[in-house]
Amino acid sequence: MLANAQRIAVIDLGSNTARLIVMGAIPGYAYRLEDEIREVVRLRQGLNDRGLSEASVARALSTLRLFKRFCDSSRVDLIIPTATSAVREARNGVQFVEQVERELGLQLRVLDGEREAYYAALGVLNELPLTDGYMLDIGGGSAQVAQIKQRQVQKSSSLLLGALALTERFVPRDPVTPEMVAAIAEEIRRQLDTVPWLAKKQAKPERVLVGLGGTIRNLAQMAAVRQEYPLNTLLGFTLSRDALQVNLRLLQELPLAERQQIPGLNSDRADIILPGAMVLEAVMARLQVEQVTVSMNGLREGLFFEHFWDHLQQPVVANVRRFSVLNMARVYQYQKSHATHVRYLADRLFEQLAPLHGWGRWEKELLDAAAILHDLGTIISYYDHHLHSQTLIINSGLPGFTPRETALIALLTRYHRKNRPNTAGFDLLLAEDDDKRLLQLAAILRLAEFLERGRNANVDDVTADWDEETLRLTLIVDEYPAVELWEAERNASALMALAFKRKVVLESTAAPDVWAVPVRKVDI
Amino acid sequence: MLANAQRIAVIDLGSNTARLIVMGAIPGYAYRLEDEIREVVRLRQGLNDRGLSEASVARALSTLRLFKRFCDSSRVDLIIPTATSAVREARNGVQFVEQVERELGLQLRVLDGEREAYYAALGVLNELPLTDGYMLDIGGGSAQVAQIKQRQVQKSSSLLLGALALTERFVPRDPVTPEMVAAIAEEIRRQLDTVPWLAKKQAKPERVLVGLGGTIRNLAQMAAVRQEYPLNTLLGFTLSRDALQVNLRLLQELPLAERQQIPGLNSDRADIILPGAMVLEAVMARLQVEQVTVSMNGLREGLFFEHFWDHLQQPVVANVRRFSVLNMARVYQYQKSHATHVRYLADRLFEQLAPLHGWGRWEKELLDAAAILHDLGTIISYYDHHLHSQTLIINSGLPGFTPRETALIALLTRYHRKNRPNTAGFDLLLAEDDDKRLLQLAAILRLAEFLERGRNANVDDVTADWDEETLRLTLIVDEYPAVELWEAERNASALMALAFKRKVVLESTAAPDVWAVPVRKVDI
Repeated sequence: MLANAQRIAVIDLGSNTARLIVMGAIPGYAYRLEDEIREVVRLRQGLNDRGLSEASVARALSTLRLFKRFCDSSRVDLIIPTATSAVREARNGVQFVEQVERELGLQLRVLDGEREAYYAALGVLNELPLTDGYMLDIGGGSAQVAQIKQRQVQKSSSLLLGALALTERFVPRDPVTPEMVAAIAEEIRRQLDTVPWLAKKQAKPERVLVGLGGTIRNLAQMAAVRQEYPLNTLLGFTLSRDALQVNLRLLQELPLAERQQIPGLNSDRADIILPGAMVLEAVMARLQVEQVTVSMNGLREGLFFEHFWDHLQQPVVANVRRFSVLNMARVYQYQKSHATHVRYLADRLFEQLAPLHGWGRWEKELLDAAAILHDLGTIISYYDHHLHSQTLIINSGLPGFTPRETALIALLTRYHRKNRPNTAGFDLLLAEDDDKRLLQLAAILRLAEFLERGRNANVDDVTADWDEETLRLTLIVDEYPAVELWEAERNASALMALAFKRKVVLESTAAPDVWAVPVRKVDI
Repeated sequence: MLANAQRIAVIDLGSNTARLIVMGAIPGYAYRLEDEIREVVRLRQGLNDRGLSEASVARALSTLRLFKRFCDSSRVDLIIPTATSAVREARNGVQFVEQVERELGLQLRVLDGEREAYYAALGVLNELPLTDGYMLDIGGGSAQVAQIKQRQVQKSSSLLLGALALTERFVPRDPVTPEMVAAIAEEIRRQLDTVPWLAKKQAKPERVLVGLGGTIRNLAQMAAVRQEYPLNTLLGFTLSRDALQVNLRLLQELPLAERQQIPGLNSDRADIILPGAMVLEAVMARLQVEQVTVSMNGLREGLFFEHFWDHLQQPVVANVRRFSVLNMARVYQYQKSHATHVRYLADRLFEQLAPLHGWGRWEKELLDAAAILHDLGTIISYYDHHLHSQTLIINSGLPGFTPRETALIALLTRYHRKNRPNTAGFDLLLAEDDDKRLLQLAAILRLAEFLERGRNANVDDVTADWDEETLRLTLIVDEYPAVELWEAERNASALMALAFKRKVVLESTAAPDVWAVPVRKVDI
């Protein structure tokens, strides 16, 4: 819904799956996913000393032909086609690339392990506010591990630990036997031993591991379904080691037909996910971390961001959180001047009322985000747009924010117009004092919204002072704020009174040199 | 979200409530509600022989001032300000109108009873495919009844039977006593007796009564909450006389404080709704109808439509159903060429397969609507856009379609991409064979969608023939339809096979004079 956006396609020919994504983007400004095609090609299947099998090559060619046709017919401006481990390992990989170029006119970039890790990291760094930590991307053929320092890839290794590769080598038939599991574990140990920087002598609670790829997302989805996770996206979801152990037990004990029924598990992954789960467990053990944070991005998005941020020295956004709020606002066509003024008034109230609420920078950032996003839902309909704003945020998530923060921002937009704030449905994500946080921030946001009801920045500023009984709010204006006083009194004062335990008095005064005296005073 | 739309405000100064709506509209093309302010002014309060009370005038002026300021600041292009029974009855009504013009620059149109009924009917006729029937609009001061013939107002009467007017006259205090109820009933009888054309000698099952206004909508809402009605709009809801009786009992028996807690009843209407409910019951009794269809439109929308359709001889859309589908598609920025081609292919399949499914014009219209609307949800996000399409339709409703039709169209969009169609959640609205209807229409829609996966009308046409075992579908193309064959086989064939109980074979052939022979044949 971005007018004049470019359409940028990224093709990722992996060992298990071929994916095409199409992003609509105005580089540096905003982007969104517009289309996606996913095909299970299993390019690795039958890979041997002579290279890719004839059948695999035929499947890959027909899928790529399809992708190319799709891009041509749906007016894609730029195609970024890449291939990873299966093609790079195969002895006939170069011939395959030549054949693709000759037959389809697509110049496949075959990424080496280091570039694969680099682009995956670009995807992650544009999604999570990760400064230092580790990244594990489990694909079909290979798995990449990387160490991030100062928002850059410090070290990386590509290992032959993809879910499909391990399954093919060690699981000749279903069900999996304890002997097969032992062989997989041994192979994982052997390969991880080649990466000395992965072994950590002691646990550090702040050590961060980010997990990428369909295998890890699917393991997270299984846990999310079990706990009735309230957001409709796994963005920022943390999968605990305990939950992973539960998954491992299920995957080892059930035969394929039953695994395909496990809630949250994609049925076309049920046959190959166990080795992937074991790789994740082994990496968590070595790093001594108790949880892994799920990333929705990866290689494809990294390749896209290289284009999207190509005016930056490094194609990584400086502030993921701020950009993701703006990106969402832009995609849903927010009214910038209104949203910005609501944010300004909300911030002014928040800062002046700090002695009463005691919240700090973190809450201010959530309030900011909610102020920018509060009206998003009007794209769905004016009626109940506060509900729709919540729904949009719960559906898409906000890159850079934790699930708890996302829930709080969504709830703030939900209560920006009416009703008493209520955390029902989100308690799994929230802390005990979030009720109070929500109440006070929602009261401030609602007051700011109604002080900007005329949508013309009529209220230049607002000042607050109070005693034990009364909270006095003075609107600084250069024109009498009839709409704003009226609407704020009717719709926002009661919640402010509840949130700050004081009678609320709203009055307006002229900006210096415009009027002489306060013109109206209303007690609530 | 309509680019270059006008913003048109309608102000309706009623006896109980003053309302401002702002529509974004491109006349004749599309419109949507963009903003609304509602104030309970109770202009009638204290109305006596000398006219409107000073306090009422002051409240009305300050509300209108607010509305005017709001319009000015939020860049409204046209204001249509009107007043109804309180102003028209009041001895000082003319002075009031002059004062409004002098002080605010708003030229209030005071509508007489006939015009009030006319505009309410315009609102209804642009929302419901009503050809002949009756209309009852219960306001705060007056109630309008009208007879519609051939989509025109044939007869109309304005009676002093508004909910607030009756409450003021007959309910001096709460709780309501049986004597007060008897006096209200007597007054209703007396006034309805003055409208001879309302009394019907015998019930006719096809006799239609449409109910307008907040009172009737609220009575419907009470019933909707009780039955866990699955749509999020009352558009087209039918309130049965039995359900109305239940409401009447609740409203008579409970004291005000408990009435305010009745689910679905607006608390600021709890004190005046009983007489309104009695008026509705009395009119239903006279017309011998067992249900009333709720309209969401009324006077305000009628005034708006006079502007919106001003190029028509009568400002009433010829085909409500067709326009409401287009309006929704336009508001949510559909891709016209893609949607239209999907509709074309779906229609072709539907018509050729008629001997197999046996459905008729009605089902074809639902399929048409779903084809036009199937991708709406992409405005929310690409992921799960089929779910979002359903949500948008369930939230907004589709003027002109019944709740059952709306549910079927929503479900068709829900299943246009994947999963087996399922009516769960909507069974209250559906008939027994709607499962089969949904399955077969969804299969056709899904196949049409994937035959247009490249979004470039690559498949010119499709022909179907079959025997007992096989359904053979031939795509007519002038270019090899790689994307479409591939995607349709993977994503649509299985559902077609299920719906039509045959093996499905897809093949493509050149349009005459382009190719010579079928180029590919795939059995599923």
